[in-house]
Amino acid sequence: MVHLESDYNNGAHPAVLRHLLDTNDERSQSYGDDCYSEHARQLIREACQAPDAQIYLLAGGTQTNATIIDCVLQPYEGVLCCDTAHINVHEAGAVEFTGHKVIALPHHDGKLRNEDLRRWLQAYFADETAEHMVRPGMVYITFPTELGTLYTADELHALHDTCREYELLLYVDGARLAYGLAASADIDLPLLARLSDIFYVGGTKCGALCGEAVVFPHGDAPAHMLSRIKRHGALLAKSRVVGVQFEALFTDGLYFDIGRGAIAGAMRLRHLFVDRLGYKPFIDSPTNQQFYVIPNDALEGLRRHIGFEVWCPVDEHHTACRFVTSWATTEEEIAELEAKLHP
Amino acid sequence: MVHLESDYNNGAHPAVLRHLLDTNDERSQSYGDDCYSEHARQLIREACQAPDAQIYLLAGGTQTNATIIDCVLQPYEGVLCCDTAHINVHEAGAVEFTGHKVIALPHHDGKLRNEDLRRWLQAYFADETAEHMVRPGMVYITFPTELGTLYTADELHALHDTCREYELLLYVDGARLAYGLAASADIDLPLLARLSDIFYVGGTKCGALCGEAVVFPHGDAPAHMLSRIKRHGALLAKSRVVGVQFEALFTDGLYFDIGRGAIAGAMRLRHLFVDRLGYKPFIDSPTNQQFYVIPNDALEGLRRHIGFEVWCPVDEHHTACRFVTSWATTEEEIAELEAKLHP
Amino acid sequence: MVHLESDYNNGAHPAVLRHLLDTNDERSQSYGDDCYSEHARQLIREACQAPDAQIYLLAGGTQTNATIIDCVLQPYEGVLCCDTAHINVHEAGAVEFTGHKVIALPHHDGKLRNEDLRRWLQAYFADETAEHMVRPGMVYITFPTELGTLYTADELHALHDTCREYELLLYVDGARLAYGLAASADIDLPLLARLSDIFYVGGTKCGALCGEAVVFPHGDAPAHMLSRIKRHGALLAKSRVVGVQFEALFTDGLYFDIGRGAIAGAMRLRHLFVDRLGYKPFIDSPTNQQFYVIPNDALEGLRRHIGFEVWCPVDEHHTACRFVTSWATTEEEIAELEAKLHP
Amino acid sequence: MVHLESDYNNGAHPAVLRHLLDTNDERSQSYGDDCYSEHARQLIREACQAPDAQIYLLAGGTQTNATIIDCVLQPYEGVLCCDTAHINVHEAGAVEFTGHKVIALPHHDGKLRNEDLRRWLQAYFADETAEHMVRPGMVYITFPTELGTLYTADELHALHDTCREYELLLYVDGARLAYGLAASADIDLPLLARLSDIFYVGGTKCGALCGEAVVFPHGDAPAHMLSRIKRHGALLAKSRVVGVQFEALFTDGLYFDIGRGAIAGAMRLRHLFVDRLGYKPFIDSPTNQQFYVIPNDALEGLRRHIGFEVWCPVDEHHTACRFVTSWATTEEEIAELEAKLHP
Repeated sequence: MVHLESDYNNGAHPAVLRHLLDTNDERSQSYGDDCYSEHARQLIREACQAPDAQIYLLAGGTQTNATIIDCVLQPYEGVLCCDTAHINVHEAGAVEFTGHKVIALPHHDGKLRNEDLRRWLQAYFADETAEHMVRPGMVYITFPTELGTLYTADELHALHDTCREYELLLYVDGARLAYGLAASADIDLPLLARLSDIFYVGGTKCGALCGEAVVFPHGDAPAHMLSRIKRHGALLAKSRVVGVQFEALFTDGLYFDIGRGAIAGAMRLRHLFVDRLGYKPFIDSPTNQQFYVIPNDALEGLRRHIGFEVWCPVDEHHTACRFVTSWATTEEEIAELEAKLHP
Repeated sequence: MVHLESDYNNGAHPAVLRHLLDTNDERSQSYGDDCYSEHARQLIREACQAPDAQIYLLAGGTQTNATIIDCVLQPYEGVLCCDTAHINVHEAGAVEFTGHKVIALPHHDGKLRNEDLRRWLQAYFADETAEHMVRPGMVYITFPTELGTLYTADELHALHDTCREYELLLYVDGARLAYGLAASADIDLPLLARLSDIFYVGGTKCGALCGEAVVFPHGDAPAHMLSRIKRHGALLAKSRVVGVQFEALFTDGLYFDIGRGAIAGAMRLRHLFVDRLGYKPFIDSPTNQQFYVIPNDALEGLRRHIGFEVWCPVDEHHTACRFVTSWATTEEEIAELEAKLHP
Repeated sequence: MVHLESDYNNGAHPAVLRHLLDTNDERSQSYGDDCYSEHARQLIREACQAPDAQIYLLAGGTQTNATIIDCVLQPYEGVLCCDTAHINVHEAGAVEFTGHKVIALPHHDGKLRNEDLRRWLQAYFADETAEHMVRPGMVYITFPTELGTLYTADELHALHDTCREYELLLYVDGARLAYGLAASADIDLPLLARLSDIFYVGGTKCGALCGEAVVFPHGDAPAHMLSRIKRHGALLAKSRVVGVQFEALFTDGLYFDIGRGAIAGAMRLRHLFVDRLGYKPFIDSPTNQQFYVIPNDALEGLRRHIGFEVWCPVDEHHTACRFVTSWATTEEEIAELEAKLHP
Repeated sequence: MVHLESDYNNGAHPAVLRHLLDTNDERSQSYGDDCYSEHARQLIREACQAPDAQIYLLAGGTQTNATIIDCVLQPYEGVLCCDTAHINVHEAGAVEFTGHKVIALPHHDGKLRNEDLRRWLQAYFADETAEHMVRPGMVYITFPTELGTLYTADELHALHDTCREYELLLYVDGARLAYGLAASADIDLPLLARLSDIFYVGGTKCGALCGEAVVFPHGDAPAHMLSRIKRHGALLAKSRVVGVQFEALFTDGLYFDIGRGAIAGAMRLRHLFVDRLGYKPFIDSPTNQQFYVIPNDALEGLRRHIGFEVWCPVDEHHTACRFVTSWATTEEEIAELEAKLHP
């Protein structure tokens, strides 16, 4: 049985856990001032080629999105995203809980199109009643998206330029960033750091037990971030728990290895499902979330060998299903699937 | 150098870390549905002798307080506590962030006195303008308190009775619960579970890397807790990280051992400081937070051997200082201090 | 010059103002307990044939929507509406400020279609991740809509039935209710009271200086409404200012006369613009908000005689414009327009 | 029967009502852009000798406090006041609803003492854990206070200086400002405008049907105030209703006449109660709220002639009662009381 239900159904990458063990007996400061967090921040700054970056380590993804969006927006501002965005669908209203509207535009393969964004912004700023409406303060995108797709460098450049023109912050949710970086043809960490105002390096879904690293690459985080984060309940007393993990993830390129391993597995999976078994991709995803159209009468057979998630019905006879590889997916597991599903 | 600055300046208890290692390769569900969290909940229910208890595992203390208080209060209700309470002083306004007033009464040795509470409640309910005031919905206490002191069973009974009479929830913040239980003459987990409506079993300060277990001992948590917790950003995707740790803490009585060890160290420290060095206690604390009045000209000498926290000035020549033992304080460390400070 | 920019660019209906004058020297209670508010509530109950109705008098429309929606929803619930809804577009995020998501579905002529609502609800409740999403707690509609259109009794029945089936509250924003009731073929106050859970009788746009009357026709408002309203800053100390006005509006059928007068004016305007001047309606509105497609080269001429609002461009050569009649629009003004525009 | 229960149990000053009548037939802009509001703002600027002042007209006092405090504070900031402050006691948690802590210091005759404020601020800024606490952003005082007392110019200067030193905003709640200005020996509107950062000119309790005028005397209101106010539900569509009233109040010195009349009545009342009837003042109030210690066996007799409010028990045999004059209290009414109570 190979578990491809999600990329957070496992423990931590062994190297991460080992580093927790190795550092366990040392005493440290707390609330983000510990030496592990400081070193992790330095390693991330270097990986981003962003020496002025300010970095905050939080525990989870929804927490990070809600806390950071609330910290940087003016009270009367909202956040623009596409309708499939995690903050719009699957965060139980955490952003609205902080008082901000999520303004959703139609997605295209899980992505926000620059042309849709520009059209919306032009209409907003041309509207004489704009002051009665929620002012746009930020554009939120995910990389990779909730559908596994990736923005190209050109698309990211275009969104960046639009944000500059309209004085919006560009925020990139990198819950699965390792997988996005490994699969992208033209976006790496330094480029992401250059083109975004804020992004986060996902830990929970990329090899850590927990933890996300929020990066302000240009060093322009608002004042009093510690107080802001704490009032959201997002400040860890024993901050080293996340610091140590990110220290491990950004030592010897582990974070990037994790991404590459999962993508290799995903591509082999794709070869098996599409080329050999003849299933159609539901979405053309280059990352660790793979979506295929499975005939309904094949579902039960599949379930004997793989754990996966039903995504949505496609037609009377077909269902879209999601298969997720991760750092924890082994070559042996993929080989086992190949042997069982297409002997 | 012995580090007594806090009980969260270390890693995790070795048994906790080992359990994280031992379970690391297994796959699990997420968002609280994992088998480790389920088992941890069962172990806590048993330790509380509260078979109907509902238990939620969160990541940190401020997060837990703000989330749970907001989840159970009506929007127009506030929370009563004493003025030294953590939620009133050191949570950066996290409870107010959720829209609820913290109503502070004077403390006595860090404790809320039942007579003060009753007087306030009588005045509130006698006031003709009460509907224009924030309605009391909960009493919040800490066990042990921020000053290391403990409520007696009689005091807890009295607060419980007052809460019943006035239809208030009694919530006990157990960030340092292990140490409170180990030091208390007459309060154990089953009694705490019987007398409180909600309490949390602190993990972060009691041997875990992170994590707090919120207990509704009578099984009357409000509906849709998962959604409520998630909109506060407090739902961990990889919930096993806390589940595994509490599984370890409540196996073979580890949580209680951790408490007892730290209290033994604290009592030896107290003997050293008070009986042998002749310093006065600043507060008469039976738990792992010890406060002594140190002559200012002795501070520098102390600092060569111990890490501690300056609490507040006492007079021109004396300073109150806090010394905190924990599960991580070893007998060797205390012996070292004894040898160095009172050879 | 005839002013048709809006229905709130005037003072109050003379009878309303006269009643303020007539009662001015009397002393009264405050915070809603005054005799005028009490009598106004009684008059509204009678007009609704809802003897158990609970009624709250607030000052303005956005205030009313945000306050009431927050008062009745559970914290984790959101409000469903169509995308043109006032709460979604023109309230500067007041509902989100209270922590609730506004979930917008596509409108059809400004209306929420029951079939769209049902499809959304079926998808939501079939979704295994529903607990991670904002739970629907209410359906919000406007009567008349922001585009001047009206739900039929059949449509209202259908929405009501859907709300019952899915345990949602049906809330009707009646900012312009007088005009809706006057123009509707089959919805009157008693029917509205029967089919909705909450609605408000608009005052500001229907003859009052200020004030909206929120009706819970079935008498099931949540407890502690005074405290709830006050913490939203929406409780008027001198509540008689709204009470006196609603007393006047619901004496001798004034509220209904106000509606009929404005609709008569709107229909005469429509005859002038559509039948005689040959302009096309932009939306087929039976109420006091009329929208016509005006050739761009006719705009300047029109502006010499009428004050109106540009709504949106239609094509290169045409613009949709809004013309609003109200209780304050006189027959003389319409006659003047007829004489000037189609002599 | 003379009604001295409150200063909001009446209608509006006749001149205010007359101005509503006189302007009723004119058409105007809305949302604060109407000519009446604009003129009212100009009149207030002149009365304050503050030509750069920005002024916002809102409907009620609690609304004004919560909206403005939230608009100007940073999210992590709280507001300092004394424990009797209206925002701390009688606003049902409206400030906390917006996410800000109200930090209450002990009052002295209803006033915040500069020395208490300074001591608190020194302790806060000396505290190493300050970033974990709610940061002070504003000092809130009332003029007159809830107990009818007045700050002297010296006291106001001292608070102003402390606020400058610690970079806090000084906000003065002037719900009863007319009465305070009339009774003060040394504070007038221009001085108040010079020494405060924000204050509001109370309308509801000083002759208007409703309405409060918020003044930023130095013209430094935050950007996007319209959006900020609207998201609090505090923007009136038909803003002229407040504009017209303030236009009347600041024409020919009406606002100051209203204050003087009520103070004259209050002083005559004081002469009657204290000098002739021999009752002791409960608080030494120079303004329109008078508090006397009444023997319990005299209460019933008093109630036959005066409406008043029981404030609190003083001892077994005495009760403190509040008697409030206003613009509506006539000389005839006071004379009637004199005749009945001390014939």
